[in-house]
This record gives sequence, structure tokens and C-alpha cells, in this order.
Amino acid sequence: MQKQQMLRQIMNLHSLGALIFWRPDELVLTLGYMPQWGLSFLVYTRDGEAVLFVPELEPEDILPTDIEIKTFPWGNINCADPWKDLFNQIKDLIHKRTLNKYPVSFIKNIGGTAPCRMSGEQPHLPADLNEQLIAASEAGYKNVTDDLLKLYLYKNEEDVRCLKTVHKVASKAVRTFYDNLKAGNTEANIAAAIEATVQNTTGGSGVEFAKAWPLIQSGVNACFGGRYNRTTGRILKDDEMVMLEMSICVNGYWADITRTGQTSEVSEQQRDIFDTVLAAQQLAISMMKPGAQMAEIDAAARAHITKAGFGHLYNHALGHHVGFRYHDPGSGLSPGSPGVLEKGMLLTVEPGIYGTEINGGVRIEDNVLITADGCLVLSDYPKGLEI
Amino acid sequence: MQKQQMLRQIMNLHSLGALIFWRPDELVLTLGYMPQWGLSFLVYTRDGEAVLFVPELEPEDILPTDIEIKTFPWGNINCADPWKDLFNQIKDLIHKRTLNKYPVSFIKNIGGTAPCRMSGEQPHLPADLNEQLIAASEAGYKNVTDDLLKLYLYKNEEDVRCLKTVHKVASKAVRTFYDNLKAGNTEANIAAAIEATVQNTTGGSGVEFAKAWPLIQSGVNACFGGRYNRTTGRILKDDEMVMLEMSICVNGYWADITRTGQTSEVSEQQRDIFDTVLAAQQLAISMMKPGAQMAEIDAAARAHITKAGFGHLYNHALGHHVGFRYHDPGSGLSPGSPGVLEKGMLLTVEPGIYGTEINGGVRIEDNVLITADGCLVLSDYPKGLEI
Repeated sequence: MQKQQMLRQIMNLHSLGALIFWRPDELVLTLGYMPQWGLSFLVYTRDGEAVLFVPELEPEDILPTDIEIKTFPWGNINCADPWKDLFNQIKDLIHKRTLNKYPVSFIKNIGGTAPCRMSGEQPHLPADLNEQLIAASEAGYKNVTDDLLKLYLYKNEEDVRCLKTVHKVASKAVRTFYDNLKAGNTEANIAAAIEATVQNTTGGSGVEFAKAWPLIQSGVNACFGGRYNRTTGRILKDDEMVMLEMSICVNGYWADITRTGQTSEVSEQQRDIFDTVLAAQQLAISMMKPGAQMAEIDAAARAHITKAGFGHLYNHALGHHVGFRYHDPGSGLSPGSPGVLEKGMLLTVEPGIYGTEINGGVRIEDNVLITADGCLVLSDYPKGLEI
Repeated sequence: MQKQQMLRQIMNLHSLGALIFWRPDELVLTLGYMPQWGLSFLVYTRDGEAVLFVPELEPEDILPTDIEIKTFPWGNINCADPWKDLFNQIKDLIHKRTLNKYPVSFIKNIGGTAPCRMSGEQPHLPADLNEQLIAASEAGYKNVTDDLLKLYLYKNEEDVRCLKTVHKVASKAVRTFYDNLKAGNTEANIAAAIEATVQNTTGGSGVEFAKAWPLIQSGVNACFGGRYNRTTGRILKDDEMVMLEMSICVNGYWADITRTGQTSEVSEQQRDIFDTVLAAQQLAISMMKPGAQMAEIDAAARAHITKAGFGHLYNHALGHHVGFRYHDPGSGLSPGSPGVLEKGMLLTVEPGIYGTEINGGVRIEDNVLITADGCLVLSDYPKGLEI
């Protein structure tokens, strides 16, 4: 398995005894498993074995089947300290395999975490979590965070299969967006319809968990689309553009999509702006293949928008990695990026033009997978002003 | 202001130079401000002044008006290191006020964080966030986490006003739940309708941000309601009970509600179980007032369920603090809890009975505010099997 080989390489390179993963997105990228409670711990050891520790309360039918599972008594009201039990089990595992002369490693960073299935709340963890995990080995901790964050950059075949599922659900959300672009509807109405469309796919083909965070900015509200995205109660009017920014999660895999549509015919200037953004995006996508410099792709899209006279209204990077989170870490498509495209990377491509000067905003965003000899747009659904 | 007095007490008690808050729920509890990006930093200094540092991209109209605001260039593609700018600004603030001989403090813990407005993703933060904040004062860091976590326990008048808003929105969600309890609907259909109902309130009276995480368990699926909650595609049948577990956020304030309803007439045994849970809940609520022992309230509800013969099917605590998050920290209504109820506390009261033995599950959950001489149920809406 590709992922396990990468983990083994990191362990060999740094002479580690064990790697530990616990954030929901770390478990998706290592095991394809989105935890219910967000309190599961994967310990991958130097000798190639892996144990997944899960709370007693975790649903059994969502657990990966090709790995040893052990439980710890979190949620059990008869257990005074479930965390002590977990930390002892991890320590015992490392000692039984006599790996305690090698350091352990894990990502210590706060933040950058996708939610678990239960809610948007990252659950409470012991204040001394890092110290307790480090104490699992007498050799302490070795910081290999840069290598671990690189794991986010590559999506393997199984990941791509799961990413296609989230993009299939997202296509229904985009359809709902266009269907609701009517003067008289509020931004909130459209966001509500999209949330419902996505939630309604739960239990359908391959979908265990589905949730969307759609953000709708209509007319002048889209002036701020380059600063932030949000939904208000504004009522859509005739002859205006409307922007959808959406993060969406299916079974722990994420897509990040933007579309700009219209309620009814917009001005010629607004249509020109839309066409400029679309052409910049298509130019960028046409350059995406293994070996391409990320900064050059950003520069090409930026030059196109600048040449059209709107460079000063395009204030953000062209794109970022996506898939295990709404925003995966790593160098993306931005000015000065040192990154080079490689097979298996998945990036957003999202140029935009926004401002009071144009009385609104336009962004078009797709998710583009780098293949052996080019790229594949996973969000390959309609993107006109009117569909 | 009550909150500021509490902060000042903590700073005096521990001779601190500054307290720093940045998690979305910390900013709601200190300022009533739910951040857009989740990257705002409140520095409250020993001399009683406060500065809120926000990303340049933060919407201006959501910022608190009674505090000094400064920006830092996060999101600005022309700035190579926005975090360096932020950390320098915080350091300068502390040095200008000559507070650098006193240590700073903040909550270091990973986890236990509510989401920001933008998405369910906790945004990326610098790997050395804690170290950089500590470096703001020559006197380093002092751990006063226990005192800071106590801030979550008390809801003041302004908090209660905001909490009433989220409970008003939640009442519409509960109404939608009962309206959709029809054989033939799927669990996903009901969850979708509830998400839409809540999102649709955005922009209405006092509602800037609204999002729900409804989890529906119907019939035999509710057997697992004491272990976990989730929505599947299961089709509701006649004559069965259906459980809604819901976390819901409006403007950064949270409610946590459970209702159990029926599609059509259920068995006499199931109705008895429902009545047992309801009576246990009402008994517990009748005991809630300042000075009451939390463990005694848990014990009373537990004894009622045990006497009815279902103690072995009630496997969790009676309740927890709620309001700034789905689950606020602190001792709650549980066996062995050392807690004593005080005015301003808001707790869930959520007894339940679940299992294959009863072919389903029942939980009823309300959010109860402790007042000067008793309590007030903020989620005081219908809770029968049929409404």
C-alpha cells in the first residue's frame, strides 16, 4: 500500500519507533477512516504493524477492517480516567515491540483540523496530550512534521475513488444552486436548499456522511468575495450575479467549489468580467501537468486578469491543495510558490475579480487532479452564468 | 462588565501581564464575537485594556465596537509572514505597557474548540503558536488553565440574551423534526429539512449565522443512541420511535437538544419507556437551583430509571455545561461529580434508555439555566412522542 510505504520511509529516514495520528483528517489520509468522535489514535510502528485505538463508543461498522483495533474506555461513566488507559496501552505496545529506544513522532500543531462526524466541535482532549504521547518511548519525540505534512500532497487511487464520490454529491449541490437563482429568494434560502440537497444524499450509493457549508453572496455582497464569504438574508434582485463558495465533506473527503451565476441577464461589463475569470481559469488548467511550476500557473492566470484591467481586484492566490480537508497544507498555486506539480496532487483553481468598482464579484473554482501526463477536473460540471 | 471583572481577578491572583484568547468559543465568551476566519487574537492586559487583533480580511461589521481593533496581514498575498507581524504587534503592546516583567497566560490545550463562521475546518495556525505567544513577555508563561476554563461555567445577562436567540431558532428545528415524522421518509430527509429550517433563519431577527448538526436515529437504529448519534438513509416505518440529537449554533452560541417522537402509535412498552425518561428528566429539573449538588441530581434521575427496571440501559451522564460550545468544559451532572449548581450555569439534562432489548432508544434533552432561586428551561418547547 502506497501510504504505508511512505510512512515506512519516514520512519526509516528518521529512525523512529512509531508514528501517531489522531486528527480526523490524518486518519482519513492514512486509513480512509473518518472517526465518529474524533478521539481515535493510530499507532504505526517501526516494524510495519499498526494498531487503531478507538473509544468504546465508536460505531463498529465504520472501522477499517484491515488493521488491529483496540478500544479504550472513553465515554464509560464507570472509568475515572479513560485517557490514562489509552496512554498506557500505547506505551505497552511500543515496549512490547521493544521500540522504546527509538523516538516517537506526530504532528504537534494546534489547528488545521477537519471535523469528526459528530459535530463541528473538535472534542476535548487532555491538556497534556503531547507530553503523554511523547512519554510512550524512553527516546522521546523527534519532530518530522514537514515530512508528515507532505503526506497530504498525494492522493492515491483509493483516495481518488473517494474524492470522486464527494464531487458527485457536490454536482447536485451546484445544480441546486443554479435552480434557486431567482429574484425574490434570499441568500439564506439558497444555502438552505444546498445544505438539504447534500444531507439528503446520506445513505445513498457510497455516502455514509455528507455535509455542506455553502456560502452565498449576491449582488453587491459579492464585492467582498475576495475578503470573506458568508450567507446573509439579502433578497436577490433581477439582473445580478450571485456567488456560491462551498466546502463539502463526504465520508471524510473534501471538495471546495465556487460558481457564479445570475438571476437574470446581467450587464455587458459583468459578463465580460465573468468571461475574463473563466478564461484565466481555463488557461491555468491547461498548464497543469507533472513538472509544471506552481508559481508560473498562478502568474499566467494573474497576467490574464491584469491584462484585462482587473489585476487590482484579484487579491488572493490562485489555488491550494484540497481533499483531506477544506484546505490541505502545502505550497499551492501562488506568487512565489516553490512548488512543482506532481502526479496525485489535487488543487483548487480559483481566480476571481471583486469590488465595489464592479458592483459585485466573480469567482470560479474547480478541483484539479494531476495525472500521469496532464490533469483531470474532478468538479467538471457546468459553470456558466446561466445553466 | 462581569466578564472583564473575572479576567481582572485572574490576572491579579496570578500576577499576569496579559491574558490571550483566540479560539472561536473563547472570543464568544469574552467578547460575544464569533470570528469569521478563526484567526483573531484578543490580548487583555493587566492594566485593564484590551486589543483585538484580526486578519485584514475579517468582515468589519461583525467586530465588537467597544474594544480597540488592530489588523494583521493574514490573507495578504504581498506579505510573506503575516504571523511574524501579529506576534511582533502583541509583543510591542505588552512592552509599551511595560508589562513584560509579568508572565502571559492562555489555554495551550489542543482540542475542545468550536468552529469559526467560515467552515467546520479549524484553520491552519503556526506550528510554534504557543512558543511565539509566550515570547511576548520576558517573564514567560504561567499556567492558569483551570481558572480560564471556569469562565465557561457562567453565562451573564448578555450571554443569556444570545442563548435565547439560539433556542428560538432551535424551536423551529424541533417543529420541523415532528412535522417530518412520517413512515416513508428517510432519516436523511428529516436531517435535511432541519438543516434547511435553521439555515433559512439567517438574516432574520438577530440571526447573523445559523447552522445545525441534526442526527436522526429511527427505530432499531436508536438502540445505539447511548453510544453515538448519526443519520443514515434508513426509511422510517409505521409504529416506531425516532430520536433527534442536535447541536445548533447561532452567532457563536450553542444549544444541544434531543427529542424522541413517533411515526404512528408505538407499543405500550415503548410508551412506558418514554414516560420513564420524561419523568426522570422532570425530577432532575425540579431539583435544579443554586446550591444543589450535581451528583445528587444525576443520582435522582438514575434511581428513577433504575427503579423502573432500565438502569442497565442508561449508560451515560445526565448532563454537561453548554452554550459557548456544544460541550462546555467543567464538572457536570454525573456520578461522582464534585460540582455545585450556581446562578448563571447552563446545563443539559438528558436521561435516556437504549438497547436491542427495547428495540430502540429514547432520550429527552433540554438546556436548563440556573437562576437566582431556581432554574429556567431555555428549550421549553413540546417534547411528547407526538406533537
